[in-house]
Amino acid sequence: MLKKAAVDRHVAEIEDLLRNVGTMLKKHGRDILSNFDITPPQLEAMLVLREFGELTMGELCHKMFLACSTATDLIDRMERNLLIERVRDTADRRVIRLKVLPKGASVIDEVLEARRAYLAIILAEIDVVDKERLIQSLEQLNDLMTRGV
Amino acid sequence: MLKKAAVDRHVAEIEDLLRNVGTMLKKHGRDILSNFDITPPQLEAMLVLREFGELTMGELCHKMFLACSTATDLIDRMERNLLIERVRDTADRRVIRLKVLPKGASVIDEVLEARRAYLAIILAEIDVVDKERLIQSLEQLNDLMTRGV
Repeated sequence: MLKKAAVDRHVAEIEDLLRNVGTMLKKHGRDILSNFDITPPQLEAMLVLREFGELTMGELCHKMFLACSTATDLIDRMERNLLIERVRDTADRRVIRLKVLPKGASVIDEVLEARRAYLAIILAEIDVVDKERLIQSLEQLNDLMTRGV
Repeated sequence: MLKKAAVDRHVAEIEDLLRNVGTMLKKHGRDILSNFDITPPQLEAMLVLREFGELTMGELCHKMFLACSTATDLIDRMERNLLIERVRDTADRRVIRLKVLPKGASVIDEVLEARRAYLAIILAEIDVVDKERLIQSLEQLNDLMTRGV
């Protein structure tokens, strides 16, 4: 019974900490994006396309865990803003793929650089051992969550 | 120069990991909320009110980093759904405060319990030393970010 309580306490603490850190990161992420005239889902779509290459709309919805009707509006707006474009698949011309345009790619780079600059300030106060401990813990959590999805 | 590159690599890795973990948590959080008929900002508002007590609308906007026009819509909808109510301050009857109703409180409890149940499954595979390392790292990051806000 004691053991169960300790396990529950760890889980509750981790849930609480992840929620707090997530809220603060979201706030800072929003502040950064407000300088770039894009929304959080637009950034997420471009990051997914950069990671996985030119996806179809169906593949993008799946990776973003979004309803395809929502994603269509998102992509229309991004195409008007010259962040991405729809291109025909070279192997099968019936298939439409989404491609990040140079303007989109440079927005991604600038946003990620701004996020790293913020974290660099936050993390400047802790030593390298603590940074490596944080990386190990986050890598482990990331792996567990990726496998558990 | 080498030292600067190592520091940059740590920060870039941490930024990447936090973003990935955040995306997966958001996805799971949304799945959980879809069973409760509330939205992520509604949950956040109730968590803030539970943590800080009965706030005014201005105080809530500030804590949620939201424009007050957005928060007014949010609160109107939550009041219609009997999750919260507007009450007059007992000391100064000109002041309106926001109060979580019993239905709202039980929704918070159920959502947090579902989040903990998900994390308990994810974390079941790692031992107590790793859980404590994760807690220490997240506490440190949480403290740094709270101070840095």
